[in-house]
Amino acid sequence: VTGQGTIVGDVGGTNTRLGYVPFPGAGVRRVVQYLNADFDSFNSVLQAYLQKIDEQGCGQMTLAIAAPITGERVSLTNCDWVIDAAVLRRLTGARTVHLLNDLAALALSLPHLAGGRLSHVAGPAMPRAGRKLVIGAGTGFNAACLLQGPPQQVLPAECGHMTLPVETAADLRLRDHLAQGRGRASVERALSGQGLCEVYHWTAREAGQVAQNLTAGQITEHAQQGTDALCRAATQTVLRLLATVVGDLILAYLPQGGVYLAGSVCRALHQLMAAEGFADRVAAKGRQSDLIRGFPIHLLGDDTAALIGCAAQADLAMEPVA
Amino acid sequence: VTGQGTIVGDVGGTNTRLGYVPFPGAGVRRVVQYLNADFDSFNSVLQAYLQKIDEQGCGQMTLAIAAPITGERVSLTNCDWVIDAAVLRRLTGARTVHLLNDLAALALSLPHLAGGRLSHVAGPAMPRAGRKLVIGAGTGFNAACLLQGPPQQVLPAECGHMTLPVETAADLRLRDHLAQGRGRASVERALSGQGLCEVYHWTAREAGQVAQNLTAGQITEHAQQGTDALCRAATQTVLRLLATVVGDLILAYLPQGGVYLAGSVCRALHQLMAAEGFADRVAAKGRQSDLIRGFPIHLLGDDTAALIGCAAQADLAMEPVA
Repeated sequence: VTGQGTIVGDVGGTNTRLGYVPFPGAGVRRVVQYLNADFDSFNSVLQAYLQKIDEQGCGQMTLAIAAPITGERVSLTNCDWVIDAAVLRRLTGARTVHLLNDLAALALSLPHLAGGRLSHVAGPAMPRAGRKLVIGAGTGFNAACLLQGPPQQVLPAECGHMTLPVETAADLRLRDHLAQGRGRASVERALSGQGLCEVYHWTAREAGQVAQNLTAGQITEHAQQGTDALCRAATQTVLRLLATVVGDLILAYLPQGGVYLAGSVCRALHQLMAAEGFADRVAAKGRQSDLIRGFPIHLLGDDTAALIGCAAQADLAMEPVA
Repeated sequence: VTGQGTIVGDVGGTNTRLGYVPFPGAGVRRVVQYLNADFDSFNSVLQAYLQKIDEQGCGQMTLAIAAPITGERVSLTNCDWVIDAAVLRRLTGARTVHLLNDLAALALSLPHLAGGRLSHVAGPAMPRAGRKLVIGAGTGFNAACLLQGPPQQVLPAECGHMTLPVETAADLRLRDHLAQGRGRASVERALSGQGLCEVYHWTAREAGQVAQNLTAGQITEHAQQGTDALCRAATQTVLRLLATVVGDLILAYLPQGGVYLAGSVCRALHQLMAAEGFADRVAAKGRQSDLIRGFPIHLLGDDTAALIGCAAQADLAMEPVA
């Protein structure tokens, strides 16, 4: 039946992925990824997708958005789009449009993921019962906590805007560099794709060297191949800060069910984690180190999981997660 | 009936408060406060209390403890006592002994508190629905999040061991002072009674002056009366760090139901908050400032609320909160 399925979407700061669930439990099909920069609004992306999958509209829609969800109208944090549920209902004929935070959607996907998508990073290797914490570093940084149900509930957050940790004089110089023109430096200023580039440029400046014009992906590639000392130093700094933040967030959520690292930056840094003593740095919290070592940490292999989280929410007819 | 009621207790790093609930819904009665330093173990405090209230034992017991709860046997974080549920069952004949984190107990008390115990600090003045965050600074520092039920659930945490925020060169000197001999400085090293004393001594050293031998209570009293510039400067530093941490924790939990500041240090600093621009500092998180200003912040007037939280858990026959 045309227009009766569910459109699911993951609207990030750089890319938008859309998928279609023809009937509850059918799984996410016909996934297409778009580059936000190619479109003037989310509505244009949606129209391109409907045309592509040859549908006039849909019965319902669930969108994961890289922004705090405070109502029916949401402004993206790292992109100037506005997403308005009322407009989307008119545009597609959908009876319901659910907007949820993108990390909340990743958290909702966790019970539905095949084990093959996960790589062990630290702590106990086996999955455990209890609340789970997803931490994502990509275009931006954020986290969300999936509570052990029933009922299934997600705690959304805005952890990317927390204060960037500083523990040494070099950290403070980096913080001041990142805070220029803003008055403060948030976690996201270092722990994101753009952040890695900024840390690389600061590293070059500190060394009195000239930075090349590299993308975050190129920086981590050079670091892994050991072909560029500045790239290696920059990824070491970012990994150290990431470990500090992951340890701090473990203390905040005590996620007995484990920590799941997600996002392009975490994936790109994954191979360097063992060599850089990532697990020990996460646990370096004085008297609570043993407590932290008890929590399993895994890497989530791909981000299409957010679409699975959207489908899970739609299937369950859950209340929207603010 | 002798021995059929519930003993509730709040075992902090400095004091232990015990109370008795003769039957479900009766409220907490016969509250006695003990100084931990006067006893060699919690068992000795308990025996003194049973003697005082003329009971042989109890039907059940719920204890709020200033420590992470990882099982039936808990070591206090800021005191060398061990509390063992099996030993307490033998000692009192209680059928069930529930151990919960002290901040989790404060969080459980929130739905049962009369309004008179709360003072408005920042944000909307009216109470709101949604999850609530309790942040306590006293002997130690911690937080806990009460989720909007049903079912009523608390997320315990160990936020006192998170990384102390550093944003200026002076902050970094303070951090290095507090990290001496430990390799790191946690939030609790500054945001606690002992922390305030340490910050005061560091402030004197920075100013090239001689610190007096003052308690945390004396430091905040001098600061309020404006009679001592060092005390005023020390409380300003602690209030600024507290505001940074409260803002960071709001970003982590997005507590639509409000923030509740608790503990002796928060209470002592309360009168200085308005003059020191506490609310503006909490909200100073760049693009998310407006989001933060939407969350109500109140001060919780007294800490006997933890006993009410224990009684609430016992009355509801809730599962223990890990």
